[in-house]
Amino acid sequence: MKPQPQLICENLSISAEGRLLFAGQDTVLLAETYGTPLYLLDEDQLRANCRMYRRAMAANFAACEVLYAAKANMFSGICRIIEEEGVCLDVVSSGELYTALNAKFPPARIYMNGNNKTDDDLRYAIGSRIGGIVVDSTEELLAAERIAAELGVEQPILLRLTPGIDPHTYAAVATGQVDSKFGVPMETGQAAELVRLALAQPHLPLIGYHCHVGSMVFDEDVFERSAAVMLDFMLAMREELGFVPRILDLGGGYGVRYVASDAAIDIEARIGELAAFIKAHCGQIGLDVPEINLEPGRSLVANAGLTLYTVGAVKTVPGFRTYVSVDGGMTDNPRYALYGSSYTCLLANKAAEEASLTCDLVGRCCESGDVVQPSVALPQSVCRGDIAAVCITGAYNYSMASNYNRLPRPPIVMLRDGESYVAVERESFADLCRLDK
Amino acid sequence: MKPQPQLICENLSISAEGRLLFAGQDTVLLAETYGTPLYLLDEDQLRANCRMYRRAMAANFAACEVLYAAKANMFSGICRIIEEEGVCLDVVSSGELYTALNAKFPPARIYMNGNNKTDDDLRYAIGSRIGGIVVDSTEELLAAERIAAELGVEQPILLRLTPGIDPHTYAAVATGQVDSKFGVPMETGQAAELVRLALAQPHLPLIGYHCHVGSMVFDEDVFERSAAVMLDFMLAMREELGFVPRILDLGGGYGVRYVASDAAIDIEARIGELAAFIKAHCGQIGLDVPEINLEPGRSLVANAGLTLYTVGAVKTVPGFRTYVSVDGGMTDNPRYALYGSSYTCLLANKAAEEASLTCDLVGRCCESGDVVQPSVALPQSVCRGDIAAVCITGAYNYSMASNYNRLPRPPIVMLRDGESYVAVERESFADLCRLDK
Repeated sequence: MKPQPQLICENLSISAEGRLLFAGQDTVLLAETYGTPLYLLDEDQLRANCRMYRRAMAANFAACEVLYAAKANMFSGICRIIEEEGVCLDVVSSGELYTALNAKFPPARIYMNGNNKTDDDLRYAIGSRIGGIVVDSTEELLAAERIAAELGVEQPILLRLTPGIDPHTYAAVATGQVDSKFGVPMETGQAAELVRLALAQPHLPLIGYHCHVGSMVFDEDVFERSAAVMLDFMLAMREELGFVPRILDLGGGYGVRYVASDAAIDIEARIGELAAFIKAHCGQIGLDVPEINLEPGRSLVANAGLTLYTVGAVKTVPGFRTYVSVDGGMTDNPRYALYGSSYTCLLANKAAEEASLTCDLVGRCCESGDVVQPSVALPQSVCRGDIAAVCITGAYNYSMASNYNRLPRPPIVMLRDGESYVAVERESFADLCRLDK
Repeated sequence: MKPQPQLICENLSISAEGRLLFAGQDTVLLAETYGTPLYLLDEDQLRANCRMYRRAMAANFAACEVLYAAKANMFSGICRIIEEEGVCLDVVSSGELYTALNAKFPPARIYMNGNNKTDDDLRYAIGSRIGGIVVDSTEELLAAERIAAELGVEQPILLRLTPGIDPHTYAAVATGQVDSKFGVPMETGQAAELVRLALAQPHLPLIGYHCHVGSMVFDEDVFERSAAVMLDFMLAMREELGFVPRILDLGGGYGVRYVASDAAIDIEARIGELAAFIKAHCGQIGLDVPEINLEPGRSLVANAGLTLYTVGAVKTVPGFRTYVSVDGGMTDNPRYALYGSSYTCLLANKAAEEASLTCDLVGRCCESGDVVQPSVALPQSVCRGDIAAVCITGAYNYSMASNYNRLPRPPIVMLRDGESYVAVERESFADLCRLDK
């Protein structure tokens, strides 16, 4: 069989019958068994990604942790997998924390981020004795101190600082520049002030500095540049205050290859380069290498995911284009509507057919913006009843899903060792009305 | 008290204590009672909007119906109100249909739209004996015929046609142009072909033609232009086939005034103008004026809604801007993230204070794109604990809400005759995990 350019991931292949296999399993059969739309998650791939990150970090740093950014895809079952793989958890809300604790994730390995933690969030996190709160502002610091004092506990904290790095990514997911709702900027002097204030809080031991420059970062030197700024800041604070926290958390953000034209990032190699840079830089400025933490989300889970849809209306508007409608859309994957994100799409039941029809793969919502992906190449024979597969949907699909048009959210079916099991059930129509009075 | 330019709606006012009143009720007290984030819905305003539409239509057309486009905001309680007001229902999915039937909405007054109805949708709708299916494509016509035959019922249908009108609105909500995933275009000859095919189906009496040019339409003549195209088509089909269906459904789409710079549309007056145009045009071409249906969604419910948030972090980045974070955001209102939509925002507990601080009102999601509204004017004293109000959120807020960052969706609290009651309960953290295995 000739090579299929659309097989964007190693966990995709094509069977002798021309069907798309994901994690070695027949996606057409999975669609029949579980219905569509359907989120599939390749547990083996997710575990392999966790192991790759941990191996790369451990090979390069004496002290380090990998934290999974739960916002990418969060449900009870994924917490158990993450925990088994020795990865820590980065949560951004009480809801994520609840999900983790409900799945028996050890609180000491949970860290809480977020630009606007409420007092309720802080009380829940501190009361749960989580490993660290990444304090995002001065008023949050004071609120955390007040609540920790009330509860009579010491709550380790990190400080979220903005190093002033432009990661050259989408504006919506760039977070490390000075002008940001996240963190406290260095170049205005506010970061140094926050460190002084943090050290004066009796119930909040300062264990680290934290930064996060954005998401979908491909540029080679972005993490090095932010590490340099953060390390220089650590040095400056040591010189001024004689204090160096244990941890430097550099956030997440390695880009993911969604389509063939995206660069493929060798994360193991990148981490090696980052480590070499950090060690050299620390050597130059005379700073011990701190514990380095990373917070991957998308790059841990994206390529473990695949979405299956059933094709419905196929409509050709002569002189314009062909619309291929599926039974989901912006409700289960709003990323094209929000960011114009690229995806690799194919027909699962005709995966070996030549894909020579250019068409727009659109959703079923009553909104023209409900596009899964414009200008995709599908077989000329595409018709009602075909199974469409959208690849690399493990991140920011289920977690961002809505019930727009009262569409129930799809289930998450996990694939492991050639077997499948339901990790999150499909919503029913009754579920949609459950809270209605 | 000096006039408050930010009072964008008639159902907003300011109390003697400087608090924002919505439907005459103290929003700060409502926030205390029900918590935040909180969707408020002014039932009296919603009913008044329904009555205005019905009155205007009845005053101008011998036969007419107003259909509420449920996708704007759908839950059990709103179905009962819509039904009591004599308005019909336009649903776009089995989930919306289930919600309506569950609320005892009479099926004969329900119509189903949608670019990609599945066989399951068609079976459910036809089996429920709904008033009409708005057939969107040839293959849907054939699927509906097959299913109606199987069930042994006659299912009235309308045909969704695209008149080729550019409504000059956002691309994401423009639906009536030739190049659309919706309907069947006239200028390619496909619409006429669909009519011929429809008339040949034994179980699908053709009761109307349907079009919908888009949403947020302000241009004065858009509905007239599409009516002219549709009426001319009716005439052409009468000449060719000797057949005129009973109904012409012109869809929805009157624009809503979200901010002071938006035009205020006098819908009653517009309907009067539209009717005069239709009567004149029918007179000119020798066609009886058909039953005219309209499908307002946003313009029925938007100004009945208001969202309350609690302010959290207030962060000033010197030389750049001030970020005011609230305890919700793109999860309960994704419209700025999706379309850059404008909203009028103010502080409910400081509604009489001069609003001279320009700031970005941002959400709590870990994403820079989570902006409620940029460059809003708030009082200089804005601080943690204030109550922020975002006006005109009755449409496409609750219906588009997600659980991103595992944020529970807010409740809907209805305001009626000076009282308040819960129509949709707040989601709990346990709700978020309810379908997890």
